[in-house]
Amino acid sequence: MPLTPEQQAEITDQRAQSAQTMRATVPGMEQHLYTAHEVLDHGFVRVIDYMGDDAAICQAARVSYGRGTKAVTNDEGLIRYLMRHWHSTPFEMCEIKLHVKLPVFVARQWIRHRTANVNEYSARYSILDREFYIPAPEHVNAQSVINNQGRGEVLQGEEAARVLEILKADSNRCYDNYEAMISDEGQNGLARELARMNLPANIYTQWYWKVDLHNLFHFLRLRADAHAQYEIRVYADMICKIVADWVPAAYGAFEDYRLGGAQLSGRAVDAMRRMLKGEKMDAAKAGMSAGEWREFMGVVEG
Amino acid sequence: MPLTPEQQAEITDQRAQSAQTMRATVPGMEQHLYTAHEVLDHGFVRVIDYMGDDAAICQAARVSYGRGTKAVTNDEGLIRYLMRHWHSTPFEMCEIKLHVKLPVFVARQWIRHRTANVNEYSARYSILDREFYIPAPEHVNAQSVINNQGRGEVLQGEEAARVLEILKADSNRCYDNYEAMISDEGQNGLARELARMNLPANIYTQWYWKVDLHNLFHFLRLRADAHAQYEIRVYADMICKIVADWVPAAYGAFEDYRLGGAQLSGRAVDAMRRMLKGEKMDAAKAGMSAGEWREFMGVVEG
Amino acid sequence: MPLTPEQQAEITDQRAQSAQTMRATVPGMEQHLYTAHEVLDHGFVRVIDYMGDDAAICQAARVSYGRGTKAVTNDEGLIRYLMRHWHSTPFEMCEIKLHVKLPVFVARQWIRHRTANVNEYSARYSILDREFYIPAPEHVNAQSVINNQGRGEVLQGEEAARVLEILKADSNRCYDNYEAMISDEGQNGLARELARMNLPANIYTQWYWKVDLHNLFHFLRLRADAHAQYEIRVYADMICKIVADWVPAAYGAFEDYRLGGAQLSGRAVDAMRRMLKGEKMDAAKAGMSAGEWREFMGVVEG
Amino acid sequence: MPLTPEQQAEITDQRAQSAQTMRATVPGMEQHLYTAHEVLDHGFVRVIDYMGDDAAICQAARVSYGRGTKAVTNDEGLIRYLMRHWHSTPFEMCEIKLHVKLPVFVARQWIRHRTANVNEYSARYSILDREFYIPAPEHVNAQSVINNQGRGEVLQGEEAARVLEILKADSNRCYDNYEAMISDEGQNGLARELARMNLPANIYTQWYWKVDLHNLFHFLRLRADAHAQYEIRVYADMICKIVADWVPAAYGAFEDYRLGGAQLSGRAVDAMRRMLKGEKMDAAKAGMSAGEWREFMGVVEG
Repeated sequence: MPLTPEQQAEITDQRAQSAQTMRATVPGMEQHLYTAHEVLDHGFVRVIDYMGDDAAICQAARVSYGRGTKAVTNDEGLIRYLMRHWHSTPFEMCEIKLHVKLPVFVARQWIRHRTANVNEYSARYSILDREFYIPAPEHVNAQSVINNQGRGEVLQGEEAARVLEILKADSNRCYDNYEAMISDEGQNGLARELARMNLPANIYTQWYWKVDLHNLFHFLRLRADAHAQYEIRVYADMICKIVADWVPAAYGAFEDYRLGGAQLSGRAVDAMRRMLKGEKMDAAKAGMSAGEWREFMGVVEG
Repeated sequence: MPLTPEQQAEITDQRAQSAQTMRATVPGMEQHLYTAHEVLDHGFVRVIDYMGDDAAICQAARVSYGRGTKAVTNDEGLIRYLMRHWHSTPFEMCEIKLHVKLPVFVARQWIRHRTANVNEYSARYSILDREFYIPAPEHVNAQSVINNQGRGEVLQGEEAARVLEILKADSNRCYDNYEAMISDEGQNGLARELARMNLPANIYTQWYWKVDLHNLFHFLRLRADAHAQYEIRVYADMICKIVADWVPAAYGAFEDYRLGGAQLSGRAVDAMRRMLKGEKMDAAKAGMSAGEWREFMGVVEG
Repeated sequence: MPLTPEQQAEITDQRAQSAQTMRATVPGMEQHLYTAHEVLDHGFVRVIDYMGDDAAICQAARVSYGRGTKAVTNDEGLIRYLMRHWHSTPFEMCEIKLHVKLPVFVARQWIRHRTANVNEYSARYSILDREFYIPAPEHVNAQSVINNQGRGEVLQGEEAARVLEILKADSNRCYDNYEAMISDEGQNGLARELARMNLPANIYTQWYWKVDLHNLFHFLRLRADAHAQYEIRVYADMICKIVADWVPAAYGAFEDYRLGGAQLSGRAVDAMRRMLKGEKMDAAKAGMSAGEWREFMGVVEG
Repeated sequence: MPLTPEQQAEITDQRAQSAQTMRATVPGMEQHLYTAHEVLDHGFVRVIDYMGDDAAICQAARVSYGRGTKAVTNDEGLIRYLMRHWHSTPFEMCEIKLHVKLPVFVARQWIRHRTANVNEYSARYSILDREFYIPAPEHVNAQSVINNQGRGEVLQGEEAARVLEILKADSNRCYDNYEAMISDEGQNGLARELARMNLPANIYTQWYWKVDLHNLFHFLRLRADAHAQYEIRVYADMICKIVADWVPAAYGAFEDYRLGGAQLSGRAVDAMRRMLKGEKMDAAKAGMSAGEWREFMGVVEG
């Protein structure tokens, strides 16, 4: 359970307060506000605030004075056009603020997306909680034998058990020692900024993360992708669901053009045209490496 | 008058719509929403949306679960501390979206602030209106004789009149020719993307501009400054008033530490210390150039 | 002629100086250094400095200690892999600094690419030269009738002549008046920061522009594209040639995957697969709008 | 010793290669190129490449055609003027690329500086080395009792010994288990992307880091500061020395205006003025909190 009763009470209290506003408001997002959506064993994603909606994208694209009286279908068409032609600035006019709790090794991948605002819980200033990510057995995989940067089969039997035991034991021993070092009972107590270095990368941290919709889509394209590490992908998947409730037309266009689409190289376009004319192609004829051809076949054959 | 009756009606209509929200809401900003605050002869600043308030800054700094029950005075103290120690990330957790109408030469200075989102009215796609900035007589100044990058005395009499006449005549002639070139009556009509090159830099453009509070403060520090060109300063001054209504504690800290403060060099700190011990200083003793000493005296003597 | 004899002498002088360096050096770029490549009637692009080469991209991707003894073919394969999989950070490890002279309306499009460093010639501080872009007759086009944001047929006869005459006459008159207003003969002289507002958008400005290779490729993808306005495309085309001499492997991958490639939506991928199986498709079956289908046919049929 | 003989040989080899270039070249930086400057127990900073010099800052500020024949003293004056007036864009025209080896908890602070390019060694793809930061005894401090975010006295005797022993033992045990989990002898071997989560934050990572001079100064102002954690400050201090050899005039201005200077609030300026007129001030009269007054006294009294 990621939340203490006190934290849950704070959230309930915050959800009880509401006010009138003339700003763009999305009922689907009001449902999400403040609630912790659980991810992994101790993590969560909470929507803290949002700005804009589908109409706000169109309003900015048109630099209009009011919300406009355009039909919703027009808005959808415009949004698809903007997405297809890489007109990214209108999507930047929507903004979302999330509170995320996540393992440190996930946070280290996440932070590489630079165009966002971040406030992380400070382990120089505060004491971290004893919360570590221990994978569920079905997510303990072997190193992939075909992709250096990925996972292969799920580990079985004794090996899997041993891994989980190691992760738990080392986490707890490191945390015990962390606590022992910072304790001021009978000693001075080590500085927190030093003691934290003993904590392994599966400890949980948390942050406020704020990003515009265009940059969020970029994050989601890379992190909700099959090549992303499972532990960050589950966060991206959860955010996808939230975004679908927030800006359904924009999310639909993103799903079609980015998540579900494919980028073809010039060589791939040429190969496709020849195939459509009935020519039988292979990697050599297409001028592609084996890896490239395999990926192209993935697009062509599904 | 910067707005047509149709535009005014759209704004009125938008202000009439409201909804319940659980998000942070600021009554002072609700007053500003959508209304056009006039700047210069045809320009304006309108608040389209905002995210966060003073409490949201503290909430992010503390990475807290709820709004917190901390007293407002605690929040003010924390905000002043954050501002004093250049902890900029919590201020990035507030965001504002403005609709701005402004002369092109002002837009060219404005856009140099890169950390913002912008959607500008497209003169490739649309026809610009016949609206040009013509300075009020009290803002028609001579070139400064002491600062290459500034204005001196207000121009008087015939010279001032001549300047205003030139600006008006050239604006109108250029616009007449713009219209004549794009017209499709009895001719094909020049492409808009080409015709616009005939329009001078005092023509008005407009954009949606979205920025976080930290970067907005950076913009305001440079553009609400006495060294900024008058025509951009009036926009910055208007935005200062809006921000003071939005996040009064943060704005107060900004006013004290940035707008009203001073940056001293190591040499200036040394000179100040010696002066406080009673030593009589001058530029040579302080190791400063004439310009640097003059600026330091401005800080010391007010 | 974009350069005065004094400017040409400065460039010749600079090209005469050389030094030993242990840094990555590219002979093809040394040829370009400082030389002004002419673009449009008064513009140019000059390479002022560069950092890195193809090997530096691989070196960063591998976080290696030396230049590596990897074969060039391995480097090419790695670079294609990085480009195909959107691993953009190694490309950011190369940097280029250009001096560009360009019309203001082109500069206004260019500056929308925010992830770059810019120093523009200041018209607050300095006096602009009497240099205006006047299109060659073959680039004076009518407004497109199918694309609101583009050009149609080249204008002919009297209409074309009239346009060119207007552009020349208005440019010169505005500049005459600019000079008259800032003159301090027999008057005080208007401040430069004000006088410049009388100058139309086809006047030339210049800047130093520095950008990393990843963001430069993003710029080139959008601006060397057939949908970009001709007057910025010629700058992008010139830069493409320079980049091909600088990082031939990276440019080759960019050309194949970005310039020559195509982005297919999920619907387009599905349509392609059905066509490859022999099904006859149309817009309705594919679930595409007329515009989307037309673009898809452009990819499929070339 | 942070480098293996093979790595050292690669560096020696790279330093043996040189070429002629017409680019700006700084002899002092050529001395630094590729050499590993040791930091902490296993870390280093290596200069991989650089772009520009002091003259390049002035060249960009003037948007000039050649290097200019301006005297060096003029350049120094201009650079001081630019620094004093926050004209940051000319400093962005210089760029540096570093290879840095550093503990993960330092990397986590470092990466918060977003305006830089980074390629980090991938622990998804590769196996990390058994190298952990173990502080020297004189840097093992107690938690500060006056500043929640800092260190107090150096720990002594048994407590210090215990801390060092814990850090060493936990590092090694975690690494032993990391190795055991990824081993493919007699088992499948856990995926690297999972196994790494068992490694504590004092393990070393490495990256290529590229940044412009303006943003580097911002990094150095915050990280070479007395309030920065010791373990990142030693990296910043080392980089300061390198930058002083690279752009001596710019570094001198940075040292005077940023590192050695002080930011006064409006209230502080007012207090200083009154003190210079002989008034005896205190926190209450100045309208400052206790902490603010203490910091102000630090500026006034040194």
